Amino acid sequence: MTWIVYLSGEIHTDWRQQISDGAKAQDLPVVFSSAVTDHEASDAAGDVLGSESNQFWRDHKSAKVNGIRTRTLIDKCDVAVVRFGDRYKQWNAAFDAGYCAASGKPYIALHDEDIVHALKEVDASAMAWAKTPAQVVEILRYVTKAQ
Amino acid sequence: MTWIVYLSGEIHTDWRQQISDGAKAQDLPVVFSSAVTDHEASDAAGDVLGSESNQFWRDHKSAKVNGIRTRTLIDKCDVAVVRFGDRYKQWNAAFDAGYCAASGKPYIALHDEDIVHALKEVDASAMAWAKTPAQVVEILRYVTKAQ
Amino acid sequence: MTWIVYLSGEIHTDWRQQISDGAKAQDLPVVFSSAVTDHEASDAAGDVLGSESNQFWRDHKSAKVNGIRTRTLIDKCDVAVVRFGDRYKQWNAAFDAGYCAASGKPYIALHDEDIVHALKEVDASAMAWAKTPAQVVEILRYVTKAQ
Amino acid sequence: MTWIVYLSGEIHTDWRQQISDGAKAQDLPVVFSSAVTDHEASDAAGDVLGSESNQFWRDHKSAKVNGIRTRTLIDKCDVAVVRFGDRYKQWNAAFDAGYCAASGKPYIALHDEDIVHALKEVDASAMAWAKTPAQVVEILRYVTKAQ
Amino acid sequence: MTWIVYLSGEIHTDWRQQISDGAKAQDLPVVFSSAVTDHEASDAAGDVLGSESNQFWRDHKSAKVNGIRTRTLIDKCDVAVVRFGDRYKQWNAAFDAGYCAASGKPYIALHDEDIVHALKEVDASAMAWAKTPAQVVEILRYVTKAQ
Amino acid sequence: MTWIVYLSGEIHTDWRQQISDGAKAQDLPVVFSSAVTDHEASDAAGDVLGSESNQFWRDHKSAKVNGIRTRTLIDKCDVAVVRFGDRYKQWNAAFDAGYCAASGKPYIALHDEDIVHALKEVDASAMAWAKTPAQVVEILRYVTKAQ
Amino acid sequence: MTWIVYLSGEIHTDWRQQISDGAKAQDLPVVFSSAVTDHEASDAAGDVLGSESNQFWRDHKSAKVNGIRTRTLIDKCDVAVVRFGDRYKQWNAAFDAGYCAASGKPYIALHDEDIVHALKEVDASAMAWAKTPAQVVEILRYVTKAQ
Amino acid sequence: MTWIVYLSGEIHTDWRQQISDGAKAQDLPVVFSSAVTDHEASDAAGDVLGSESNQFWRDHKSAKVNGIRTRTLIDKCDVAVVRFGDRYKQWNAAFDAGYCAASGKPYIALHDEDIVHALKEVDASAMAWAKTPAQVVEILRYVTKAQ
Repeated sequence: MTWIVYLSGEIHTDWRQQISDGAKAQDLPVVFSSAVTDHEASDAAGDVLGSESNQFWRDHKSAKVNGIRTRTLIDKCDVAVVRFGDRYKQWNAAFDAGYCAASGKPYIALHDEDIVHALKEVDASAMAWAKTPAQVVEILRYVTKAQ
Repeated sequence: MTWIVYLSGEIHTDWRQQISDGAKAQDLPVVFSSAVTDHEASDAAGDVLGSESNQFWRDHKSAKVNGIRTRTLIDKCDVAVVRFGDRYKQWNAAFDAGYCAASGKPYIALHDEDIVHALKEVDASAMAWAKTPAQVVEILRYVTKAQ
Repeated sequence: MTWIVYLSGEIHTDWRQQISDGAKAQDLPVVFSSAVTDHEASDAAGDVLGSESNQFWRDHKSAKVNGIRTRTLIDKCDVAVVRFGDRYKQWNAAFDAGYCAASGKPYIALHDEDIVHALKEVDASAMAWAKTPAQVVEILRYVTKAQ
Repeated sequence: MTWIVYLSGEIHTDWRQQISDGAKAQDLPVVFSSAVTDHEASDAAGDVLGSESNQFWRDHKSAKVNGIRTRTLIDKCDVAVVRFGDRYKQWNAAFDAGYCAASGKPYIALHDEDIVHALKEVDASAMAWAKTPAQVVEILRYVTKAQ
Repeated sequence: MTWIVYLSGEIHTDWRQQISDGAKAQDLPVVFSSAVTDHEASDAAGDVLGSESNQFWRDHKSAKVNGIRTRTLIDKCDVAVVRFGDRYKQWNAAFDAGYCAASGKPYIALHDEDIVHALKEVDASAMAWAKTPAQVVEILRYVTKAQ
Repeated sequence: MTWIVYLSGEIHTDWRQQISDGAKAQDLPVVFSSAVTDHEASDAAGDVLGSESNQFWRDHKSAKVNGIRTRTLIDKCDVAVVRFGDRYKQWNAAFDAGYCAASGKPYIALHDEDIVHALKEVDASAMAWAKTPAQVVEILRYVTKAQ
Repeated sequence: MTWIVYLSGEIHTDWRQQISDGAKAQDLPVVFSSAVTDHEASDAAGDVLGSESNQFWRDHKSAKVNGIRTRTLIDKCDVAVVRFGDRYKQWNAAFDAGYCAASGKPYIALHDEDIVHALKEVDASAMAWAKTPAQVVEILRYVTKAQ
Repeated sequence: MTWIVYLSGEIHTDWRQQISDGAKAQDLPVVFSSAVTDHEASDAAGDVLGSESNQFWRDHKSAKVNGIRTRTLIDKCDVAVVRFGDRYKQWNAAFDAGYCAASGKPYIALHDEDIVHALKEVDASAMAWAKTPAQVVEILRYVTKAQ
């Protein structure tokens, strides 16, 4: 069995790459999926449908186009990793965590210790809290390859 | 039919009271439910089960006890209002929005215009974006009493 | 048991009233629910959230506010009646029929014989095809009161 | 991952072909499915089960046989495109949109601007509104290939 | 809590009455529901929608009208009793049992010993096999009133 | 796409073979599944778990072992064919039809005209009523290969 | 709102009574439900259906009759309390916990500290671990009455 | 079709190996999945996320990490075998059985006769009770290969 791992959240550091590299190094039977992580492309996802003078509607259209991708990929994944960095609001990451919780989709929360209190509801529904990408890789190794 | 309205999110302003007062003034057929909004009580929800020296586990226990209440009440509501204020991370509000989205539970996002971009995923799955409690009351009036 | 009957579709004739009167005349254990049938109020449902210069977005906002009501009421009904008249596109009625079909919610199609071919998919998933409100009342009587 | 795209609605123009050609030109990882688009064959789908003198029952039998195909293919698709042209009632397209909405299946509405008001409920539940097949192709490209 | 008990199957003996009388005699907290048990009325349930020259379509229309009632009542019941007598095919009773099985609805099979082999699939999914209405009453008493 | 077709019901004539041969002759993209059709093997399915002196329990054990297979295969099929012959009670076929109906699984009823009335509930939930295996093959051809 | 609390597990101590008394003392808006806790009556639940010489089948019949009650009550409860004492296997309690976990039903595990390791899977899916009935009462008070 | 068989429960005897060897000897179309059966590795599954001084939390973290694996594999299996040995509490096995029951996942209980009474709820929801791995293999052969 190949496990599908959805990587949600922060797009400003290379945590996705670290997890992907770590999985490859250990030859884990996993494939990764994700939202589009090119910030500008993501914000412009709906522009092809016509330009908007109003920021709210431009965001609305783009967020819905992105939603076609993200909901489908979350629904198809076996486990998600939800990453919270030290900048920005990252409400979309928390939104994805809530979506996973309601769908019975297991997820691993990935964040530093200093935001533990603010993330207590997100962590309470998570299957694990990891502080580093390396820990995530180790959890994935155990889950997919231990006997 | 009496509509059950779950009020999620910010606990530092009186928006819940405003909506409740507005609904009463118009005699709307609604009842409201909510997480425990006493911040200290909420943080201490799990303390009765034994003290914890580790902050993560104290939060974990309390968040899970609160979860018994919040998930049950969200599951039973007809519509939720999810409020984002101008302070704090409010990841629990975004988590609730994602939970509602995955459960097919309609929700109204309530927040100012300056955080529209950060909330685009939350708004894209909402049935409405309101800027004031009065607007929420008006939507509730229309939904529950218009002919 | 009181049966909840959702009345979907055409708003330009008094078919809802005829069914309601007929049910009252026979003292049927039914209550009726419906979308807002005041056309102008329905089109303006979202205006309280702010005006829109673009017709698409005005419609979008209003349709979503109406959706809070209609989806909730359809989800709570025991049986729906979906009415197609001889004017307008009435895509919302067909949309409701499809929504009912996917939800396993039984519905009665109500329309004249001359549009049978165009409605064949809608009728194929219906539990009955009635041509008059009086027939709907008779079906409701049988379903709720026969022994 | 190969995405399955269901093409619903209008059968009198070549919009399906345009989308299929566009997807092929960009080498998108998509496969398309659809109802039977040969109008006469579709109307006659149930004739093999015996002839009917009554038009309603002929339609009924054929619509149900078509339903074996359409419901299965919609249930299996990842995203649907629902096309409304400028002729005919097209209630089956609106029915499919409602079916998708209730099933949590994302869909793109494809239609001209002049029927926006009549389609407001259909559009309100859609993930995108496209005016041209080329826009649909671009959305599919973004959803399936952007990084 | 009042338990809702759906009584499915044979309509030619007074087993429903016996169970109802027995429940009343013991003051059980149960209410009963059922398909229409007047055979002629049931066969004619769809006639109000127009007469049919073809027996298949007359049956089809009536069976669908009856289905509005039976599916709704089965979906709302807490437990069903499915009765097989010594005459007729009673495929509708077996159909109801399969419907209950797929819905996770517990049911009690009620039939004599001589048809045990033919009913082995029905019995295998049942929560109990009773031979007499009195046994059913006793099971209902235990389930609803024992401490 | 390869369609999975579950063949339920009568085991005393070669209808399964006829459908299978017909599908092969037309090179249809279908695979067939079925309960074990060797009557004696089916009745003895549970014997390996220990012999039973009581016929009810022997049947019970075998029916449950068969249930592991039949429910799994029905749950995995795209469409079922439920066959009623002119002998035996065939309650298991009607049970399967009810199971399909509650699961939203489309099925084709296959039986002669003389048992139409007794099968009206089964037929009312079917997507088609065929009288011959050849008709079933034709429906499968249309559903899987028509354009 | 009145909360329904299902009390599962150990029947040899008075923990149910303690929780019930505690809830009454604090006037909590809760009602309690439970399996039949009279051990002999529970073991004999199926005897009315006929005696069995084989212990396995006697147990089987009784367990299924009890299942009509327990599954229905668990499905209807808002929260469960699953109690493990210091004697017996109590596999039914662990079974109920697994049933709750798969159903998304929140539960509180109630047991002493010395069996923590053996119950780690049960506790991992619980919303809280309480060591005393008084703690359970306090959690119920918080969940149902805190503001 | 290849059947996926989840092997749950006891880890101190070689029953998994016996079933696997038996299946291979008969060339059954089955693949097996399981929790991690290395007891120490399983207990330490969460240690990579940071050490815990408190036994409860160490168990909690490990059980949740194991849960990512076990729930996913149970959700993906076609049939489970749940084994109870003569030592230890084995609440996790009973938990898995309850999880399967609520999910509609068929399972075979595998245990000796002397614990039949304590396992009556587990057995009542099982599709079969086997006493030996060889019997399980035979059931799997029948289910997957009989015609």
